[in-house]
Amino acid sequence: MKPIKTLGVLTSGGDCAGLNAAIRAVALHARQTYGLRVLGILDGTLGLMDRPLRYRELHAEICDGRLLREGGTVLGTTNRGDPFHYPMPDGSYLDRSPDFAEGVRELGLDALIVIGGDGSMRIVSRLCAVAGIGMVGIPKTIDNDVHGTEYAVGFSTAVNVVVDALDRLQPTAASHHRVMVLETMGRDAGHIALNGGIAGGADVILIPELPYTLDGVARRIREVLAQGRSHALVVVAEGVRTEQGRPVTDQLSGRYGGIGQYLVDEIAQRTGVETRATILGHVQRGGTPSARDRILASSFGVRAVELAAEGRFGSMVAWQDRGVVEVPMSMVTVGARAVAADDPLIQTARGLGVYVGEA
Amino acid sequence: MKPIKTLGVLTSGGDCAGLNAAIRAVALHARQTYGLRVLGILDGTLGLMDRPLRYRELHAEICDGRLLREGGTVLGTTNRGDPFHYPMPDGSYLDRSPDFAEGVRELGLDALIVIGGDGSMRIVSRLCAVAGIGMVGIPKTIDNDVHGTEYAVGFSTAVNVVVDALDRLQPTAASHHRVMVLETMGRDAGHIALNGGIAGGADVILIPELPYTLDGVARRIREVLAQGRSHALVVVAEGVRTEQGRPVTDQLSGRYGGIGQYLVDEIAQRTGVETRATILGHVQRGGTPSARDRILASSFGVRAVELAAEGRFGSMVAWQDRGVVEVPMSMVTVGARAVAADDPLIQTARGLGVYVGEA
Amino acid sequence: MKPIKTLGVLTSGGDCAGLNAAIRAVALHARQTYGLRVLGILDGTLGLMDRPLRYRELHAEICDGRLLREGGTVLGTTNRGDPFHYPMPDGSYLDRSPDFAEGVRELGLDALIVIGGDGSMRIVSRLCAVAGIGMVGIPKTIDNDVHGTEYAVGFSTAVNVVVDALDRLQPTAASHHRVMVLETMGRDAGHIALNGGIAGGADVILIPELPYTLDGVARRIREVLAQGRSHALVVVAEGVRTEQGRPVTDQLSGRYGGIGQYLVDEIAQRTGVETRATILGHVQRGGTPSARDRILASSFGVRAVELAAEGRFGSMVAWQDRGVVEVPMSMVTVGARAVAADDPLIQTARGLGVYVGEA
Amino acid sequence: MKPIKTLGVLTSGGDCAGLNAAIRAVALHARQTYGLRVLGILDGTLGLMDRPLRYRELHAEICDGRLLREGGTVLGTTNRGDPFHYPMPDGSYLDRSPDFAEGVRELGLDALIVIGGDGSMRIVSRLCAVAGIGMVGIPKTIDNDVHGTEYAVGFSTAVNVVVDALDRLQPTAASHHRVMVLETMGRDAGHIALNGGIAGGADVILIPELPYTLDGVARRIREVLAQGRSHALVVVAEGVRTEQGRPVTDQLSGRYGGIGQYLVDEIAQRTGVETRATILGHVQRGGTPSARDRILASSFGVRAVELAAEGRFGSMVAWQDRGVVEVPMSMVTVGARAVAADDPLIQTARGLGVYVGEA
Repeated sequence: MKPIKTLGVLTSGGDCAGLNAAIRAVALHARQTYGLRVLGILDGTLGLMDRPLRYRELHAEICDGRLLREGGTVLGTTNRGDPFHYPMPDGSYLDRSPDFAEGVRELGLDALIVIGGDGSMRIVSRLCAVAGIGMVGIPKTIDNDVHGTEYAVGFSTAVNVVVDALDRLQPTAASHHRVMVLETMGRDAGHIALNGGIAGGADVILIPELPYTLDGVARRIREVLAQGRSHALVVVAEGVRTEQGRPVTDQLSGRYGGIGQYLVDEIAQRTGVETRATILGHVQRGGTPSARDRILASSFGVRAVELAAEGRFGSMVAWQDRGVVEVPMSMVTVGARAVAADDPLIQTARGLGVYVGEA
Repeated sequence: MKPIKTLGVLTSGGDCAGLNAAIRAVALHARQTYGLRVLGILDGTLGLMDRPLRYRELHAEICDGRLLREGGTVLGTTNRGDPFHYPMPDGSYLDRSPDFAEGVRELGLDALIVIGGDGSMRIVSRLCAVAGIGMVGIPKTIDNDVHGTEYAVGFSTAVNVVVDALDRLQPTAASHHRVMVLETMGRDAGHIALNGGIAGGADVILIPELPYTLDGVARRIREVLAQGRSHALVVVAEGVRTEQGRPVTDQLSGRYGGIGQYLVDEIAQRTGVETRATILGHVQRGGTPSARDRILASSFGVRAVELAAEGRFGSMVAWQDRGVVEVPMSMVTVGARAVAADDPLIQTARGLGVYVGEA
Repeated sequence: MKPIKTLGVLTSGGDCAGLNAAIRAVALHARQTYGLRVLGILDGTLGLMDRPLRYRELHAEICDGRLLREGGTVLGTTNRGDPFHYPMPDGSYLDRSPDFAEGVRELGLDALIVIGGDGSMRIVSRLCAVAGIGMVGIPKTIDNDVHGTEYAVGFSTAVNVVVDALDRLQPTAASHHRVMVLETMGRDAGHIALNGGIAGGADVILIPELPYTLDGVARRIREVLAQGRSHALVVVAEGVRTEQGRPVTDQLSGRYGGIGQYLVDEIAQRTGVETRATILGHVQRGGTPSARDRILASSFGVRAVELAAEGRFGSMVAWQDRGVVEVPMSMVTVGARAVAADDPLIQTARGLGVYVGEA
Repeated sequence: MKPIKTLGVLTSGGDCAGLNAAIRAVALHARQTYGLRVLGILDGTLGLMDRPLRYRELHAEICDGRLLREGGTVLGTTNRGDPFHYPMPDGSYLDRSPDFAEGVRELGLDALIVIGGDGSMRIVSRLCAVAGIGMVGIPKTIDNDVHGTEYAVGFSTAVNVVVDALDRLQPTAASHHRVMVLETMGRDAGHIALNGGIAGGADVILIPELPYTLDGVARRIREVLAQGRSHALVVVAEGVRTEQGRPVTDQLSGRYGGIGQYLVDEIAQRTGVETRATILGHVQRGGTPSARDRILASSFGVRAVELAAEGRFGSMVAWQDRGVVEVPMSMVTVGARAVAADDPLIQTARGLGVYVGEA
């Protein structure tokens, strides 16, 4: 195997906390230990596909502790469009993988570390195959739905934001004797809602993976009220559908902005209690990463460089049992990891009396 | 003057952080220093108007440091209905001031401390006049629009929540090269948006008090982009209207959920930059109070008890120059204090280059 | 097996964040699901050994979300004395296990859930054997040195406090071009220092498990300075000894308060850079638990009740791979789990260029 | 008056949170509004006194929101030595004001904005007089002891850190039935301890300005215990002396590290309660500035530039009644502002039952 000399690193997909910590770890280890040149590719794969090429040499000065503490990605990211079928301004579609391959050649990249979710991994794997370059993946996603790893970068911080919001909503709910509905991120996977809801003391947690009934929701809220508490907290992932399984925007009249507002109306009607919604939105992505996300990202970055240096491509670093392991990319790119019906946290939630949908 | 023996305290209007700290200070000082019996009236004035009466004796054990740290109000609050013209279930309206007066007599209250905004002060002043009982006010409102005091309880914490959100939105805006619009509370007064926007590094701050143009907004964003920054932050108070001064819900088709979404659409169209909205909502009310709100609330509570004990009724405690003063209630109940066009923070914002509406 | 009716729960050893969340989960699940009576024993085993017995029935009202959010333990705890050889005021020693057994009988306890570290588990196991009562353990310790579980309750919050401190020390170090030494908890195990140091961007991390040289420390600091950074961060666990392996208080003249000050003197002398120490102390134990500690504690509490209800005694609940498992107590009571020389985080730290002692 | 073209800005004395926010505001307003060249002088006055001169042109890119959020000072600072009597390595002393004046000439500075405490203001005023350059001051100090301004930059964040620590110490104190003593910064002025202690629920607050007795301290702690609370919190500023008014290091045998440990020993002995000390130290300086410090610093920076542009030198910007005013430097340089015996917060503390020394 020919030793690598120039290593590329890019972030792809939605941003989250801890990306910079991973970039820093990659740059520090690659430069200090292996003497590699490290190029940060800007704006995901676009930096290699657009002309002029967009990249940034990752010198030592960029790698100080500040990068460890900062949310987002200094490299920029994108989640626009499939590179193999890229939407052009004129409405046509273009296969941009040749641009990518040429970009790789122009920069002289010997390997690429991709920090992304399962979708990004799948696509960039194919791009790297076209370009004839080895790739190592670092899992990141606030949704924590990447297979093969206990945790992905960004999840811990997102859960903290949800819990922080519930810690703020609880006193105002109690003061006004209200039901508060908090809508979190999670289009397909309910990990954020489930973790955040348990940690934040929710009485009801609804996630896309588990069917529920509005009667079940209302019953739990009435139970709570009957026990003498005058308020309740409901957490719902944005991807949850109506009781009948329809997307919420299917409702007539366009009245509903989202699942949160739908639940507010239905709960208020069923229980007679004043009910309000809060939609957390983009704040879940950002901010100073949690200690956990920094450790995860740092460990991932270091190990990914080692795999690249050893030529062990086609793999993703993953967290298992307090440390980093290596899993084959094929295990990852099968799709998103949903919350299983027998997820241990479902048992925890039910044990606490939380309504998490029909058993 | 007959010395008072029994002191009532209630919270009225929307809840906020620091109410419990004020309640604690009232109870501690009234009991320890003056040997008063202290009754916490539940759910604002309703606790005295409904039957059975709802109240809670504030013993020592409720007054430990935990109350200092907890958001919301352990007494409950309400912002429903004018007691002099109270909406009844059958659609009629009732003057409930006699109920209030009778409640005061039944409990043997000699004085009442009211923790509320300018509206609550006005209404409860009139109720106390009917009941023939002296009242002292403690200003609270996240909007900070009470006349006569530099700060009201709850404002500092609300601003912190806004700044916290901007600290989280900035990295995700930068990572995706987006404009992020944050909608804060503030129906009539823009203090939260103005303070939060300056502290959080906003490029545009729109408040109900100052007219603006969408061209002005777009011009500032283009300026920022021209300087090499690829993202921008916009803060808007919920009470801001369209460029033409119409409430946002006046828009045809009910398309807009709020001013945040209106701005997103208009900014995206005018600048071509991806733009997203976040509506902060109820999280601004809650949570552990800031150090500032705890000091303010504690100082207010102590002084309000002194005023009540000395029979100096019809006054409100206020914060001026690092300490508490007493202002006549008549100065307070003239209405809400808006952001003046020559507010020093408007000058600060403009000095930083922030667009805060037309000069 | 006779079904249990009355369940005791106690916290033992040093307090930490998340104990209340575990107590709440135990009480909620035991009462709601199994209809058990739940008695919280006060002040660790003392509540059962002293007379009158000290305990508190855990009703529903104590189990609201507030308990989830609060640091410490509402049951109180103690880490004074071995119950089998208990130091009495008169200087004699007493075997108090008969008192314990009698206390168990008086309260009619059928099983006991013990929230404690490995030392507490060992001792209370023996007490329960004497009393003829089944026990289930829930691991807690900020040091994370309990065998058999990836994480113990309290560790995550303690690491967050360390990282928070480093985030505060870094700017002041940079402003004054100083080396800042942070002394963390960890008498025997360096997990807090190692995790906190990596997440907080330390340049040197010293733990009790790994020998170091002052030359190694100074070399790393000089390296950092040579790279153009004018400051450095050092994290040291309190249990670290002098370079020669002597306890720090062995120094002549009683000059050193602790390892932090020792390092300050040695680093300043070797590098010529202004160096200062901060000793974090008790703040590492307390405060609102992290989301992670709340999830851990809630999951542990629920599962521990299930084990007790099923009569599966002599076991400890443990966290492995995103969920709770059961491990035999014998695996736990072998002693504290130290940081292994090949701990994955040691590799991470070295990969980042951190000096963590001699390889 | 000749219009100024080149503006210098420097930070002097101990660092604190919000310095960067002030630097950013100065640079933004000076460049954008007045078209000035802005030079950041490095390491306080040393940057102008040492050769080669150390400075950094403050371009637009340094002025983004990141600077607003970051603790410390990117310019560096120093609190070493009186420039008029500067300690040289050979043990002699040198008047370095001619170096300073020459540095000012070399850089072509027309005016200097100094961000510092009262001591720095006094010294740099004299240096500027020698150099024949106008100066405007921005008050900063975590101690908040600058005359003429309600608040100085850095104080609010420091108080938050103290409150944060008390919020963490309270649960561990309660869990173990301990008295916790927290030693804060404040060599001569007790503002941090007083504000932090009130906001953090302290039972005893000792500051350098007010004499106390150990009997008074012990009496308050016994009172608290008698009321049924099993723990207490004590806050003490580092500059507090022994009961007899001696510096703590005067104690025989060098046993005491500081006032915190002195109190621990005396309280434990007098009350029989387990007592522990925590010394907060440098964490009080650093970290992300509070919203309040960012607003203060931004407002100060903007106004200081206006004063400089208008040639209104010899003044300091100050905060009064929600806005910035201008005070003559002569009002500031008279010395530090101590806590007055009739400070409103002393009344607040006493009203809450806190022991703050003898009345």
